[in-house]
Amino acid sequence: MLRYDVTSNDWVIFSPARAMRPEEFSRHGSRMPPVVPADYRCPFCPGNENLTTPEITAIRDGGPANTPGWKVRVVPNKFPALRIEENHRRQEQGRLFRQMGGCGAHEVIIASPDHNTPPALMPIEQLTLVLRVLRDRFNDLMRDTRFQTIVIFKNYGPTAGTSLAHPHCQLIATPVTPRTVRQKLAISQQYFDQTGDCLYCTLLADELADGKRVLAQNSHFVAILPYASHVPFEIWILPRHRQSSFRWIDPSLLHPLAEILKTVLLKLHVGLGNPDFNLTINTAPRGDEDSESFMWFIEILPRLATPAGFELGSGMSINTMLPEEATNFLRSVDACKIAAAACG
Amino acid sequence: MLRYDVTSNDWVIFSPARAMRPEEFSRHGSRMPPVVPADYRCPFCPGNENLTTPEITAIRDGGPANTPGWKVRVVPNKFPALRIEENHRRQEQGRLFRQMGGCGAHEVIIASPDHNTPPALMPIEQLTLVLRVLRDRFNDLMRDTRFQTIVIFKNYGPTAGTSLAHPHCQLIATPVTPRTVRQKLAISQQYFDQTGDCLYCTLLADELADGKRVLAQNSHFVAILPYASHVPFEIWILPRHRQSSFRWIDPSLLHPLAEILKTVLLKLHVGLGNPDFNLTINTAPRGDEDSESFMWFIEILPRLATPAGFELGSGMSINTMLPEEATNFLRSVDACKIAAAACG
Repeated sequence: MLRYDVTSNDWVIFSPARAMRPEEFSRHGSRMPPVVPADYRCPFCPGNENLTTPEITAIRDGGPANTPGWKVRVVPNKFPALRIEENHRRQEQGRLFRQMGGCGAHEVIIASPDHNTPPALMPIEQLTLVLRVLRDRFNDLMRDTRFQTIVIFKNYGPTAGTSLAHPHCQLIATPVTPRTVRQKLAISQQYFDQTGDCLYCTLLADELADGKRVLAQNSHFVAILPYASHVPFEIWILPRHRQSSFRWIDPSLLHPLAEILKTVLLKLHVGLGNPDFNLTINTAPRGDEDSESFMWFIEILPRLATPAGFELGSGMSINTMLPEEATNFLRSVDACKIAAAACG
Repeated sequence: MLRYDVTSNDWVIFSPARAMRPEEFSRHGSRMPPVVPADYRCPFCPGNENLTTPEITAIRDGGPANTPGWKVRVVPNKFPALRIEENHRRQEQGRLFRQMGGCGAHEVIIASPDHNTPPALMPIEQLTLVLRVLRDRFNDLMRDTRFQTIVIFKNYGPTAGTSLAHPHCQLIATPVTPRTVRQKLAISQQYFDQTGDCLYCTLLADELADGKRVLAQNSHFVAILPYASHVPFEIWILPRHRQSSFRWIDPSLLHPLAEILKTVLLKLHVGLGNPDFNLTINTAPRGDEDSESFMWFIEILPRLATPAGFELGSGMSINTMLPEEATNFLRSVDACKIAAAACG
């Protein structure tokens, strides 16, 4: 069976013949090194502030910058993909070769002073602080008009692209709007022009009406496993009240967002045995931040399968698990186990 | 620095600050299990033909089907992503939910009776046979008018999506044209409409004129590391005489194609210590097979880096190695070492 993703115009191949049972996915749990060598000084741990580049901002109870006492700390990435100092001039090198300066920003948000607590087990209050810092950094960086898009992302575990165990996430401000972002905007804009409705609002309403893929909800947010999920256990957290850019989220909504995020991460953590995953925030670029036809949302992509030659060559995904089955499995994840895990 | 990929309209971020030296990439050599357990019966080895589904075709010196004596053997994938028996009807499930039957084909091409020889070390004659079988299967499957695109791909090594050591590649016939294929066609079509030239021919001419990223060439094919490579050591093998679909390749060109493919794979094998990689053939879908504005070509993507949250969230790539440097490194790969590897 194939399913059509109306937000990207991709067909996704669902291949139950290749499927594992949900339980089997948990064998793929994170291979994050659990034991830290005795002589290892984690650059993100309190007391080691001198091992990072000087901090950009931090939430702390008084005390000077770059010393312990912080709850969340933001530093420039030591190996930045893009840098504020670079220019963003386009340069032609012949008919077809075009380059531009590596202008942008690349920051690391150290999400907790506690080295060993994965995000799923963090207190909701700590997650709320992290979301607040992300919102503040987003707004601050958008004052630099050279930046078009802010990409917020978390890599969790080696197969997701990090081997740093200390909880952290990152953001990159890019000097161009990525093509795929532009295409998603064009698709939702066209839907809006045709129907007068936001594509994502309609999708959310239909998912709520169908119900089979709704994992969690509170008064402000809904977590679903989308109809045309590209990977097993893909999860979206959507706001009930549409906004085009994450930068506009009302501060009072950060706590309910942290709450549903924690619920979702905990179900993945317990149900699938601490899997590697990537998390990103889909959000509108400069110029479309007040669009009526787009919605920011959080996307969580567990790294349970390896995209191979077919996916790389065709751009199509093969997903071995229907989102309805994945939802059923995550719904059934034992609340007692979750409570026990949450307590330590 | 960012570079623009004129074939996809993507900007690629080049981030030398994050770079390893070329030599360091070879630490990531394939973790393909080198030793086969004594009690393991490889389903792709001669004598074990009964462990696969019955063969579709084979090249053999006489003898009945599904017995030893073959040189290349094609069997249906045991866990197919798509199947010939399924229908391809679209079905609406509400306003936004649309699905279709999993109609298609999924075949495995067993590339050699020899279990232990990676493709880089295969004789050119054997590679030629494999390419011939791929061309024949492509043409045979396209007689089923439900199939729109044939995706040919090879996964080599665990990080590239396979742990089967026995040399093989695969093809999937899809009942829809993937969106990314459609977009590349639209981009090259627009270039043709504007200029009267094929975008890929122009790109190849410019790469040959510039010369800095040309790795190998013979009278029919050129291997380059493209200007806007998305991953380190990405390699394209392009035909000098443009055709839109691989299915039209003249049989006399299969040997020179195998020859340059072997050169390229051997340089990767020796230079980077047997890295995992994916290989695909970019080719036009049904309806565009005679297009004047598209060109089939082979794309090789070594799996030396892990795409993470930024790439998944934005669709942009971060590449830590300029293709000029990668070309220099591969050019310098010692010819004696290569000869020794080829003999041993």
